[in-house]
Amino acid sequence: MNKSTEIQAQKETLRIETFSDGVFCIAVTLLSLEVGVKLNDEISNKALQQALLDEWPIYLAYVISFVNVLLAWIGHHGLFKMLNKTDNSIMIINGILLMLVALVPFPTKTLGKFLSTDAFNTAVIFYTGYFVLISIAFRLLWFAAARKKYLLVQDITPQQIRLTTRNENIGLICNTVILGVAFINPWAALVLSFVMWVYWIVFA
Amino acid sequence: MNKSTEIQAQKETLRIETFSDGVFCIAVTLLSLEVGVKLNDEISNKALQQALLDEWPIYLAYVISFVNVLLAWIGHHGLFKMLNKTDNSIMIINGILLMLVALVPFPTKTLGKFLSTDAFNTAVIFYTGYFVLISIAFRLLWFAAARKKYLLVQDITPQQIRLTTRNENIGLICNTVILGVAFINPWAALVLSFVMWVYWIVFA
Amino acid sequence: MNKSTEIQAQKETLRIETFSDGVFCIAVTLLSLEVGVKLNDEISNKALQQALLDEWPIYLAYVISFVNVLLAWIGHHGLFKMLNKTDNSIMIINGILLMLVALVPFPTKTLGKFLSTDAFNTAVIFYTGYFVLISIAFRLLWFAAARKKYLLVQDITPQQIRLTTRNENIGLICNTVILGVAFINPWAALVLSFVMWVYWIVFA
Amino acid sequence: MNKSTEIQAQKETLRIETFSDGVFCIAVTLLSLEVGVKLNDEISNKALQQALLDEWPIYLAYVISFVNVLLAWIGHHGLFKMLNKTDNSIMIINGILLMLVALVPFPTKTLGKFLSTDAFNTAVIFYTGYFVLISIAFRLLWFAAARKKYLLVQDITPQQIRLTTRNENIGLICNTVILGVAFINPWAALVLSFVMWVYWIVFA
Repeated sequence: MNKSTEIQAQKETLRIETFSDGVFCIAVTLLSLEVGVKLNDEISNKALQQALLDEWPIYLAYVISFVNVLLAWIGHHGLFKMLNKTDNSIMIINGILLMLVALVPFPTKTLGKFLSTDAFNTAVIFYTGYFVLISIAFRLLWFAAARKKYLLVQDITPQQIRLTTRNENIGLICNTVILGVAFINPWAALVLSFVMWVYWIVFA
Repeated sequence: MNKSTEIQAQKETLRIETFSDGVFCIAVTLLSLEVGVKLNDEISNKALQQALLDEWPIYLAYVISFVNVLLAWIGHHGLFKMLNKTDNSIMIINGILLMLVALVPFPTKTLGKFLSTDAFNTAVIFYTGYFVLISIAFRLLWFAAARKKYLLVQDITPQQIRLTTRNENIGLICNTVILGVAFINPWAALVLSFVMWVYWIVFA
Repeated sequence: MNKSTEIQAQKETLRIETFSDGVFCIAVTLLSLEVGVKLNDEISNKALQQALLDEWPIYLAYVISFVNVLLAWIGHHGLFKMLNKTDNSIMIINGILLMLVALVPFPTKTLGKFLSTDAFNTAVIFYTGYFVLISIAFRLLWFAAARKKYLLVQDITPQQIRLTTRNENIGLICNTVILGVAFINPWAALVLSFVMWVYWIVFA
Repeated sequence: MNKSTEIQAQKETLRIETFSDGVFCIAVTLLSLEVGVKLNDEISNKALQQALLDEWPIYLAYVISFVNVLLAWIGHHGLFKMLNKTDNSIMIINGILLMLVALVPFPTKTLGKFLSTDAFNTAVIFYTGYFVLISIAFRLLWFAAARKKYLLVQDITPQQIRLTTRNENIGLICNTVILGVAFINPWAALVLSFVMWVYWIVFA
């Protein structure tokens, strides 16, 4: 009986993760809907070439968000791999995290539309601030999981827990610093994001 | 033979649930497509900040619908976990339920667009009425399942059946009351929705 | 070795079915994107009520397409349940079928937009003609499967094969008749679709 | 322990493939969102018929992209079937490939919009150039996999590796030739794409 309850709990955890995966996967693919060109006046090869080149802020926003959501997905999976059971707090925080991830197309299109305009500063602050929110949700998710030992898989080591705590903290701090920089110099903030990616890809 | 037919029936039930999960997952992520800002006249940091703030009815509608669909998904899963087999009535009612869930972006954008306009009353009545329809579909689904003992999993207890019946009834009554309140005071209806969520999250 | 090749072939078949399921699921949920109201002049409760009622052709088109795609999904699954292996012809015909299913939002929005206009006849002929194409793809898919005994699961009976052939033929004939009726009386064609659904739900 | 690490690595590979499958599946279904007709002036059966016929460039672009993404999915699956483990390079290259696949709706709508206009040459060059990028990502993915023997499944033969290398090379060369032809004669480039499909369907 105890054994079958255990398996049931693992199945439920897997199920929540599968649903979450679906949200990450759809959100990341929906980003593409915002990308497209229009020609208003003259339709010619020259005009289309120019229009395709003029879309660079949209492409840049697409690439940045795609990588961010992909890294968030990898982080989410790494976190759920350590979970054996879920409780109410985890369900609620995970729901809030999904709500934020599903809405990533919104800051992305805002960034893409206003990156080359006078509203540039606000767009970058909004975008980087949005990812601070996502980092906070991740940090809370891990807090809710790590605080109760019986929610984690049995063969987890204290080192693994410490490492994850450290990673989540670094993620939150980095994103907050990037937001801070965005207030002073928006381009420096975007460059810092790239640097942070390299860090994650090499170390995690 | 009997055993393999049993397993076949369980597989079919799982398959229908997986498809339903897909509809819930896509519907919830598509909600984000409606969220976005436009600047018509002047493009400046001030104007973008103002435009982002002015979108609050859209954000509110997004959050309400996201939570509602997520809770509906949890309820749907809880119901299917008790099913061992499906029959024609369950298939049809589940199909109608999915048709309603997939269309949630429609009442959501209606609510978001008109929440801060003179058409506010109609928008809230339409929105809350829509979720009464979803509650009815859930109630019928459970009715179709609970009425035939052989459709349910074997180790289910009469208490579990009674509890689910009670929950489905409460859900339907709450949503109907909220619709009624929406006719008198739309804001009170939206506040009541929040209260109902807390109830579900704490008790179910 | 032979055994493991067999299992490998079954896995591949399952994989194609899972991908196909995804297309059905996404296509059916994307139908909702076309549904929405706009108020151009005056924004009031009256105007919104009227606008919501005026959308009935869009709602009708949504419901018809949702049911059609859901029935197509059930038919597709019934067909793949009899398949043990796939070959090149099945892959190609299935690809064409998915291409048609993924595009169902197109005839749906055409029907919804023009159902209450002077272009009504053309819209219904286009819509019903589109589902004749889907029936043909289904008929070809079953032809490609039934013609080679070794592609089917081993415990299939000749009766099952005959029944499926008969069902696919009836489906194709019904849809063709509906298209024919659409040329004479578009509303009669839409009513006939409803009658056909009842047939499928009761007999298949 | 070694055995369980092995199984864990296989699970992770499967997981990445499932996520990738989701992106392919959603991207291919989102293509349909661009297809639709509008009537600006007169609404009549004649006008709708004409409008439906005038959309042929959009239909053609839809079909070409659907087939291309479907073939890319088959190629992706064929490649992952040979993988036992993934490393950082594979993860990164696969991420870039998914980023490109998710964005296929962009070149598709560009092709569809401008296929019958004066900007035709640029649209075809952009479209065919986009698929050269996808071929390069595939070639790099296979390079990252084939270079380290321990990443591949154990029972793979040197012939299989050589055949895949040959196929990936042919794919890249063909797409580059098609891009070259697009500069001289755009229609010839589109016809060549069809010929290449027949090749893939018959030989791979």
